[in-house]
Amino acid sequence: MPGSFNYDDLFSADSQDTPLKVVTHAEYDFAVAYPAPETLPVDGLTQALQVMLDTRAEDLARNLAYYPHVQGSPELREFTAGKLLSDRGISVSPDEIMLTAGSGEAIGLVIQALTNPGDTVLTERYVYTGTLNQLQRFGADVVGAPIDDMGIMPEALDRLIDELAEDGRRPKYLYTIAEHQNPTGSTLPEARRRQILDIAHRRNMPIIEDECYVDLRFEGETQPAFRTLDDSGIVIHVASYSKLVAPGLRLGFFTAQDDVMRRASSFKIGSGPNQFSAYAVEGFLRENLDRHRAALNPLLREKRDAMIASLEENFAGTGATWSRPQGGCYVWLTMPEKADLGAVQQGCMDGGVGYVAGPAFAPNNDGAHCARLCFAFETPEKNRKGIARLAELFDDMGVLSGTASV
Amino acid sequence: MPGSFNYDDLFSADSQDTPLKVVTHAEYDFAVAYPAPETLPVDGLTQALQVMLDTRAEDLARNLAYYPHVQGSPELREFTAGKLLSDRGISVSPDEIMLTAGSGEAIGLVIQALTNPGDTVLTERYVYTGTLNQLQRFGADVVGAPIDDMGIMPEALDRLIDELAEDGRRPKYLYTIAEHQNPTGSTLPEARRRQILDIAHRRNMPIIEDECYVDLRFEGETQPAFRTLDDSGIVIHVASYSKLVAPGLRLGFFTAQDDVMRRASSFKIGSGPNQFSAYAVEGFLRENLDRHRAALNPLLREKRDAMIASLEENFAGTGATWSRPQGGCYVWLTMPEKADLGAVQQGCMDGGVGYVAGPAFAPNNDGAHCARLCFAFETPEKNRKGIARLAELFDDMGVLSGTASV
Repeated sequence: MPGSFNYDDLFSADSQDTPLKVVTHAEYDFAVAYPAPETLPVDGLTQALQVMLDTRAEDLARNLAYYPHVQGSPELREFTAGKLLSDRGISVSPDEIMLTAGSGEAIGLVIQALTNPGDTVLTERYVYTGTLNQLQRFGADVVGAPIDDMGIMPEALDRLIDELAEDGRRPKYLYTIAEHQNPTGSTLPEARRRQILDIAHRRNMPIIEDECYVDLRFEGETQPAFRTLDDSGIVIHVASYSKLVAPGLRLGFFTAQDDVMRRASSFKIGSGPNQFSAYAVEGFLRENLDRHRAALNPLLREKRDAMIASLEENFAGTGATWSRPQGGCYVWLTMPEKADLGAVQQGCMDGGVGYVAGPAFAPNNDGAHCARLCFAFETPEKNRKGIARLAELFDDMGVLSGTASV
Repeated sequence: MPGSFNYDDLFSADSQDTPLKVVTHAEYDFAVAYPAPETLPVDGLTQALQVMLDTRAEDLARNLAYYPHVQGSPELREFTAGKLLSDRGISVSPDEIMLTAGSGEAIGLVIQALTNPGDTVLTERYVYTGTLNQLQRFGADVVGAPIDDMGIMPEALDRLIDELAEDGRRPKYLYTIAEHQNPTGSTLPEARRRQILDIAHRRNMPIIEDECYVDLRFEGETQPAFRTLDDSGIVIHVASYSKLVAPGLRLGFFTAQDDVMRRASSFKIGSGPNQFSAYAVEGFLRENLDRHRAALNPLLREKRDAMIASLEENFAGTGATWSRPQGGCYVWLTMPEKADLGAVQQGCMDGGVGYVAGPAFAPNNDGAHCARLCFAFETPEKNRKGIARLAELFDDMGVLSGTASV
């Protein structure tokens, strides 16, 4: 309501005037962060709920009648522990897992447990916007570590920490998406992970590892998680069912050393996540995990191939380069440095193609010549046509000649 | 996991070592804050989901595939706007409602939008523990306003604010549950609400009104909400579907003046609440709201009557008094001041009767001679027997004679 009461002197110092977003979608929507909607198992999830009702009605009633356990559904935690062991070789008990409202809540709780305003925190050079926003929200001084097409470069990371030390800045922890990184699509090789773990121990610097895309591999070999390689407690492991099953379910989770779990839970507001979602996901994945991945990932590969083929066809000779991810949702487009993809983002949106320009992912707000293109959401056909359209739009707007007029 | 990494120098100053609770239930559980599990509409909710699937499958798929709108399901917000209008005479559009993970998240967002550490905040003399914990968590100096069996006494409130002013403490806002208060069960009469609104305007002090028990009236007349009486924007209205439908669904909501909504949303972590729950609640309540309340509330009355009859039978002559709520879930038991119900709480739990002693609800940690007894959860028969058992336990432990030995 418009209202007329004057709150100006009453708002907290931390609060920000945040517009309530109305999300708009372009005809060719490469700006989203969603998995393939064709594979969304609505029937499977609802059937799983139906089975729960038929066979475990008392259980369901009891769980809905009570406030959920702060760590969330014991059954889904048990399933998650089994999945972590079989998929990633990570051995934790269900009691060592906290389910959260998406991985976003998990990341928020851990950030709050470890961050005082002014603390320096390391991420990749380009980092998931949701994490970047939360880090900045809680006052972190975020520094991006140098990357190449495989992710963080360990020697450069070590040098960066030395350079920061000269300024009196000691990184508190490192946040990284090592498998199918958002936004660049890279996967960090095992050897680099081991080197980074050495650095982390030497620097007394925990690693928050976000594996929210780990289920979406369609090519190459999965690399062991940081947490697989190190069970000392220095690694905090975060993941999600948003990309594998459905974002709208709001189910993520993390596992960490006991004291980290307890500290993180002190920032929890309300109780554990939704029981319906937990039942639906647990029931569906117990029966369908392998089948679902086998349906999803070849489709993602087809979509990636279509986007990359169209990039080769339409962006050859422009000086552009792009990543070739082995999984996940994103291709990272790098144009010549003179291009400003931020300046023409809205124009391209109006012209029918959505993307997210680099600065949204950059701790220093740079990277305007880069863009994240989500290949996972649209059909292969739309990926092809949308990239062709994007090349036309860039051309029309003078991006390719570096004379962009906005 | 136990882990061996030393986080001692890394935890944030705000983080607290919070034990991960294992909830235990006594044989006669009057400690819970749950509505009647017999009326939990598991079948109705699942049928509503089934109907959604049959008739709006594309809609459901689209909503699950996308991250939810930050304000939550548009359909449930539309239903909620209609319910606020017909039940409470509150006229807001769906765009002016934010759905949250239970009312706990709503309260947390609003508290963060309005509270700087050290700010003085007013509540009732005894207040919902969840709100009290959040207020203290965000650094509020919480002061309980004097109450009688109808709730806050306006003249005493006004005097309290003057007294606080002499100490240089100016209350930032008032949080209140005016309808079926938690923990005392009182309902604030309309005349007092009008007086408190006058005070609020004179003192430039917004009111956060928590109506999470408003649907559970089985006797007497509902009083107009603060928000019904005042649409200037000074009232922030919070409510929930936890008590009416099921706590495990995690669905609450609030409505406030635009700028308050925007400030509050800046503390939101992740996107809006779960789509499955939203569909289930919307579908179920569109068809069954009146029928469901007509089934739930007479049962609650029967349960209250059983508990009060047993209190009359077993506590007469002990100097105890108790509230007679017209709705909600709680009877407030007041023993003679010498009794220490906090000291014997665990002993009573071990003896089969759960309750929550006063200090859990008291900003100043006092009220040890009081206890909240939830009448809504157990059967009428168990309410009778459990209160009789409680009298025996109090007697055995010397509570009634004021010689409690723990």
